[in-house]
This record gives sequence, C-alpha cells and structure tokens, in this order.
Amino acid sequence: MKKDGGIKLKVKDMDIATGGTLVAILHEKDAHKLDLRSGDRVIVRYKKKEIVCILDISESRKAVPKGRIGLFEEVLDRLGVKQNDLVSLYFTGKPESVGHIRDKLLGRHLSYEELYHITDDITHDRLTDVEKTYFVSACFTYGLSVEEIVDLTRAMVETGDKLKFKGTTLDKHCIGGVPGNRTTMIVVPIVAAAGFTIPKTSSRAITSPAGTADTMECLARVELGEKEIRRVVKKTGACIVHGGSMNLAPADDKIIEVEHPLSIDAEGQLLASVMAKKASVTANYVLIDVPMGKQTKANTWKKANHLRKMFELIGKRLGMKVKVIVTDGSEPIGWGVGPLLEAEDVMKVLRNDPEAPQDLKKKAVFMAGTLLEMTGKYKKGEGMKTAKRILDKGEALKKMEEIIEAQGRQNKLKLSKFKYEVRSKKLGRVREIDNEAIAKIARMAGAPNDKEAGLLLRKKKHDLVKKGDLLYTIYARNEFKLSLAKDWANKNTGYLIK
Amino acid sequence: MKKDGGIKLKVKDMDIATGGTLVAILHEKDAHKLDLRSGDRVIVRYKKKEIVCILDISESRKAVPKGRIGLFEEVLDRLGVKQNDLVSLYFTGKPESVGHIRDKLLGRHLSYEELYHITDDITHDRLTDVEKTYFVSACFTYGLSVEEIVDLTRAMVETGDKLKFKGTTLDKHCIGGVPGNRTTMIVVPIVAAAGFTIPKTSSRAITSPAGTADTMECLARVELGEKEIRRVVKKTGACIVHGGSMNLAPADDKIIEVEHPLSIDAEGQLLASVMAKKASVTANYVLIDVPMGKQTKANTWKKANHLRKMFELIGKRLGMKVKVIVTDGSEPIGWGVGPLLEAEDVMKVLRNDPEAPQDLKKKAVFMAGTLLEMTGKYKKGEGMKTAKRILDKGEALKKMEEIIEAQGRQNKLKLSKFKYEVRSKKLGRVREIDNEAIAKIARMAGAPNDKEAGLLLRKKKHDLVKKGDLLYTIYARNEFKLSLAKDWANKNTGYLIK
Repeated sequence: MKKDGGIKLKVKDMDIATGGTLVAILHEKDAHKLDLRSGDRVIVRYKKKEIVCILDISESRKAVPKGRIGLFEEVLDRLGVKQNDLVSLYFTGKPESVGHIRDKLLGRHLSYEELYHITDDITHDRLTDVEKTYFVSACFTYGLSVEEIVDLTRAMVETGDKLKFKGTTLDKHCIGGVPGNRTTMIVVPIVAAAGFTIPKTSSRAITSPAGTADTMECLARVELGEKEIRRVVKKTGACIVHGGSMNLAPADDKIIEVEHPLSIDAEGQLLASVMAKKASVTANYVLIDVPMGKQTKANTWKKANHLRKMFELIGKRLGMKVKVIVTDGSEPIGWGVGPLLEAEDVMKVLRNDPEAPQDLKKKAVFMAGTLLEMTGKYKKGEGMKTAKRILDKGEALKKMEEIIEAQGRQNKLKLSKFKYEVRSKKLGRVREIDNEAIAKIARMAGAPNDKEAGLLLRKKKHDLVKKGDLLYTIYARNEFKLSLAKDWANKNTGYLIK
Repeated sequence: MKKDGGIKLKVKDMDIATGGTLVAILHEKDAHKLDLRSGDRVIVRYKKKEIVCILDISESRKAVPKGRIGLFEEVLDRLGVKQNDLVSLYFTGKPESVGHIRDKLLGRHLSYEELYHITDDITHDRLTDVEKTYFVSACFTYGLSVEEIVDLTRAMVETGDKLKFKGTTLDKHCIGGVPGNRTTMIVVPIVAAAGFTIPKTSSRAITSPAGTADTMECLARVELGEKEIRRVVKKTGACIVHGGSMNLAPADDKIIEVEHPLSIDAEGQLLASVMAKKASVTANYVLIDVPMGKQTKANTWKKANHLRKMFELIGKRLGMKVKVIVTDGSEPIGWGVGPLLEAEDVMKVLRNDPEAPQDLKKKAVFMAGTLLEMTGKYKKGEGMKTAKRILDKGEALKKMEEIIEAQGRQNKLKLSKFKYEVRSKKLGRVREIDNEAIAKIARMAGAPNDKEAGLLLRKKKHDLVKKGDLLYTIYARNEFKLSLAKDWANKNTGYLIK
C-alpha cells in the first residue's frame, strides 16, 4: 500500500465498543491484497480527520465483507463517520515503542525516552494486548533496575495529569491484601486536623471486597474532577477520592490489566505504580504500609525488608521522603468486611464509640503519628501523642464531617435484611483467619458493588469459641447472592479453629 | 457463582466468527455480580452439550445488554443454539497450563507433562492471546533446554495427527529467508525416482512472496486430506502438499501467531517447530537447509553452526538422522520470484531446459545427493552422481509428472500482461541484491495470492550491467497492483550496483 496513496473502503459499523484500543477490521482478502497483517497499524482518514488503528482481520464475510472496513464505536465517534461512509486507508509503521519492547525482551536496559514512548503508547491505547504482555513479561523476567523503575515512574507521571498543592503535602499508601484495612479514612482526617495537606486518591477494589474509594463512597461522593478536588482540598486540607476519576498515571491501570491473567506481581511495576500515584499529587512525605502475612505480597521478613529499602530508595530519587512500616497482615482488621460495614468501623473509631475496633484504631493512630513525625515538626513520640489527642477530642471526626460535606454527603445506607450466620462447629481457639477465603465470601455476597453486602466478623485470632458460637454474619442484597456466599462459607468458613 | 448451580442467560448472536478461541461476552454488571473477570473461564451449557469459553466483558449495553450472553459463531455452532435461546453459565478454573506458564515465567524448567498441557490447550484454543504471549515470552527470555525442546517437539507431535509410511522415509526442510529457493520441487522427484519415500508437506508463504505449497499449486492440487496423501505416496513414493491442510503439530502455527507481532524468533521454538513437522510424518532421514546471508536467521557462521549442532542433537533425541547444510543466502535463487515464475524455473530444471537457472539446479542436485548418501545406500560421491543422472535422464521429470497427476493437475496458468520493466540507472557490477526488498515488491505485485504475479530477474550478483539494462520485470494481475509494486521498486530496486 502506498504511504501517500491509500485506498477507499466503505464503513461497516460493528455496533460494539471495545473500550480500549482503536481497532479497524478488514476482510482477509483485502488485507492480503494490501499485504497487511493482524496487528499492523493503519491510518483511517475521513475528511480532514485521521486516526491510527490496529488492524484486525476477519475470516468471515459475515463480520466484514470485502471492500469494507469494520469500525468500532470509539473510532466512528472520533472520525465522525457512520455506516456506509467512504474512508481512506493508509499503512503506517508500528509505533517506535514496539522496538523498545523488543529491546527489553532481548535483555537491554531501557532509557527514560524509551520508557516514555512505551508508557505514552500504553496510555493512549496504541499497543495491542500481545505487545503490552511482552513488555510486562520482559520487565518481570529480567526485572527493572532502580534507574529503570525511577524512569518508568517519571514516565507514568508525565503521561498523565498532575495535581500540585501549596505547602507540605502528605500521603499514605497500603500495598494491600488485608480485608478491612481502612486506615486511610482515619489517618487523613487526623493529619488534616493537625494542619497538613493530604489529598488522598484511593482505588476501588479489584480482587478485594472493598477499596477505600468504595468504602468512602458510602459516606460521600468520590468521583470528583480535578477542579472539585482542588476546591475540597483548599477548604478542608484533605480529600478521600477515587483516583480513577482523574487521569493520574493512567498507564498504570492498563499495565495491571495484563498482569492480572497470570497473577503476575512484578516488583518493579508495583514500585512504579505506587510511586507514580504519589508523585502525581506531588507528595513530599509518604508513609507506606506493607502488611506481612501468609497471603500478602510480603510474606517473609526478607521480602518486606527488601520492599522497604526499594520504596525508600525510589522515593529519594524522586524527591519524596518515604517511610515504610511493616504491619501485621495475618487477619482482617476491624469487624466489617465490605464497603458499608467497613465505613461503620471507621466512623465508630472517629466517634470514639466503645464498640469501635481497637486494632483499626491503634494502627491508624500509629500511622498518623508516624506521618506527623516524618515532617520534622514533631519530635519522636510527640506525633503519636498528637494523633491520639486529635482523635480523642473529636477533632478528627469534625474534620471527616467537613471532608464529607465538601465532597458531597451521600444518603445513609442500611445493612441488608438478607443475612446468614456462620457458626463454629466445634470448641477451640481461632488459630488462623484466611484473608482470601473471607474476601471471596464477601465478594460472593455482592461486595464491593453492593455496598451493603459483606461480613460482620465476631471473632478474631486467639479468641476462644464454643460450638455454635457466631463467627460472622453474611449480609447480601438478595436471597440469590446470599445463597452464593453461603455455599462458599459452608465449604470453607475461613476460620481455623483448634 | 456456584460450580454446580449456574445461572440462566439469553443468547445474543454476535454475528461474528473469531476464527480461534471460544469467547463468551457478559455485560459488566453481570460479570461483577458473578465475580467474574475478563479472561476467566466459564462453562456454557445448552441441553446436554457444554463448552468452555473464555470470558470477555462488555462495557457497552449496545454490544451485550444485562441478562444476556454474547456468543460468536463457533460457540453457537458447537452448542447448536441460536439468538434468544436460554443457556446456563458455570464458573470453572483456568486451565492447569496457565500455572505451568507462570512457572516458566518464574524461570522453572518444564516437564514433558507440563509442556503437553500447554501445547494441548494452545491446539484447542483454550488459552487467551495474553496467556500464549507469556509462554512465548518466557521461552524466549529464559530459552529452552535441549530437554525442553525435545519435550515440546514431542508434545506438538502428540497433540496433532501423525502420518506413518512404510519403509525408509526421507524429508527436507529449509529455514527460509531466500526468494526463489524452490529446491523441494526438484529434490522430491529425484529422491522418489531413486526409490525412496519422501512425503513432503510444505507451507504457504507468510511474509515471503511464495511458499513451496503456493508454487506447487500452480501445477497440482496441494490441499489434500490424509487419505488422499496416502494414496499419492503409495502410488508415487512422494507428494508435495500443503502441510496446513492436515493437522500436523497444529500448536506450532498458533505459537507463531503471537511471535509475529514482535518479530520474535525464539531458537527453541524454531527447532521444535521444524522437528515436530518432520516427526509427524515419521521421517528417518532429514536434510535441513540453513541459508546464510545478511537477512537470514543465520546471519553469521557462528549462528549457522550453532543451529546445525542443535538440529542434529534434537534429531538424534527424537530418533531421526538429521544433516544440516549451510548454503548461500545472499541473493535470490533462480530467475523467478512468485509462485508461477518459480514453478517455471523448477520445470525448466526438470526438463533440462538450457535456460534453466543453474544455481537452483546445482543446489537441488547437491541436496538430493546428500539425502541419498544419508541413507547409507550410496557411498560418498555416489549419491550426487545418482541424483544428477536421474535428473539428466528425465527420470525426475517423469516422477514429477506422476506426482502432479496423482495430486490432480491444475489448469495451466499464464503470466499476466500487466508488466513493468525495472532498468539500471547506471553502469556497474551488481554487488548486492536485497532479498527483503525483492520479496516486498513481489508481494506488492500480488504474490503469493495472485499466482501469476511476481518478478522475473535478469541479473544476479557479480553481473555487469550497463545503464538502461533490464534488471527485472514485474508482473501483476491488474494496473492497480502493478502501480503499487512499481512505487516500491522506484523507491528501492533492491539492486546495489557499483
């Protein structure tokens, strides 16, 4: 095909949205004629608009007949074409970044410019899943050097939006794996009440029963645009919003998509992922929670320590002061598992309710205190005391109410009436709680999409239980989902009692 | 979702054939409700039939609305369902092979059983492109041990069909990269005329202007079923057919599909690919042609030698006697480039036509002679003499006519009247011929799909040319394709004249 000639094809509206990469489909014979192959890049032009699409080839005349080009919603919209319009097709080379991915696959070290090209093309859906997978796979097998992690982080930040705030900005992050670990919603109001800026962007659950964004959403709106976030932070010094609603380091999520099918957890990508989100909100002090337990990413002291060193090193290179704490990740934190139940735990802690989960409270105060001390404005021990005082005096609750008000208060939710009690079948002590089993049951009950669904735990590790004692109650939106969760719980309660 | 329960969904006919993996599409909300993610495996059941599909998730209600399941042609056909039928959906785990791929990605050595699982799932389209890419990528970065290559080859053979013939079976293979290299169509009739069995399965062109199957198809049918092949081989001792029409080591082609986007050429996979095809026809003696040139896989003596050793070693482990010859791959072989033009070169050699390309003749005789000597039935030097005598006496031509007759003679094709002459712009000697440029021009002219399209070369390396001398003629089926090829040739003739 001529680079400057192009051929005319009639549009077929495929009536499907791909939700990602821009794809154009040709019939096999047309593709052969033009010497084009699946995965090649083509320019589709209509009037003065043009876009680069990834070529897919149809073997069936039913999907795309000869002489036609199948386009998906995204492409139709961007070009402003409809069924039967005539568009021109031109061949164009693969993006430069495919060559860089090939280099990494050959074991070469990638420069900032090369990582930028790759990240930029991932951000703009210019790479196929196969190409992205080669990148993730090569980074995983060869690993990334500290230099490459720093460069990848920078590239992720640069290919997204940035939020800059005045003054000292604090942030926190947890690498996850522990149900109920909702410290953010306590740490943020304490730190903000102490006078610091802490614009927290959180994620929704991917494989867990609740992310901080899902939980906060029981209380306030979390899908805020950049302008709204600026207003909320200006007013209250803080926010707890869904990071996905902004365009912070967008390449990250798209990389995670191809890591998921093989449950790959590349260290370099984890570090870059976390640090890019922090650098995008230009944080100065960052506290990172690394829970250690049988089922968490850091399942040995050695791994936890290594992660600690890497986070602190990468932070330093990016001009952030990072502190890592290794915490107990062996069982769920608090009583609730699922958005609404976890939100209730948080509010009980903020209200100094006697029924508040003490493990959650203790951990949150420790984290808030550590963050305060990191700023250098508090001496060792003073940060912790300050944090505790702010919480005890109700200042954190007041700040949380301010944040909720500023983000937009949600209507109060109620727990579902569809519930099922899981009881112990024997006498003994709770030796272990299987975080993954608990998370799965809560998800089958409908969490995190059904906010009122989840588990209310009644026993924790080391507790003595008698036969028939309540271990937890499952809540679900309807009978069907309750029965799904019940089935899972009946197979494995998640409690090891001996 | 219950493993033994399942939910009911109404079928939406997507009206598309995927031509590969079996896919089922759910609306985002339904997937969330069932805690299913893109890439998860589900069982779709209708009456007593069920199949495992890979789940895809639709974000648009237009593609698949809630409560429905989008199915492609392959799934509809296999289940015998149509639009609006009610099917049941069940969750099932990912195939075991995904875990083995993960192991390879962690650098572990895979056993025969593990490689068998992977190969079997690739053969039956049970893996997603992302999963397959991880496998290819891990094999590429870590490499495969000799043990693993042997096991992968065996697994590829076992997951496909086998063709067993009586007596001593010979075979040949070329790892490619050189236009016009059609030795097979001369070697096979010589060897068969000498009384040996040589059931040759060849490929069609992927990136080249002609494969042996495309070229042979100008003379005879090449898409023969197993039964027909047996009949032809029984009658003539040989065949020259398209391997793709049989099910020999089918995993191979599916692996190549994901290697292509990054032009990856993993040595282990190349070895397994070639040897699996040979083992599938239970060859005893195999001659492998490794052309060496700037643009071939073996572009240095070191690489060529290494490949030689590996081929011979793997062959030994699989019970085949393998000999590798390293040949000149620096320019096209013969005069024609494109199916019909190459077929004419072959027939001229067989007919002892004075205009026959001597390079093709010499190479084919050398290869046929080498194969004859490999069997031990000819002394050193005797094989070559025998091969030459068979060719000179017209016995090879007679055998070729028998093979053509047995496979089914094709109507004689004629060269196209649409042609364009490419002439030298200066005086000098041909220093280099760019194989890739020549191949590209021939492909733009329509080869291999248009059998009568291609290039008829008039000058080869070391030839003296005057300004205005004819370098080659381009043939194409119509003006449009001729103009595409002309444009490429005008940019780069492929000839370096100095």
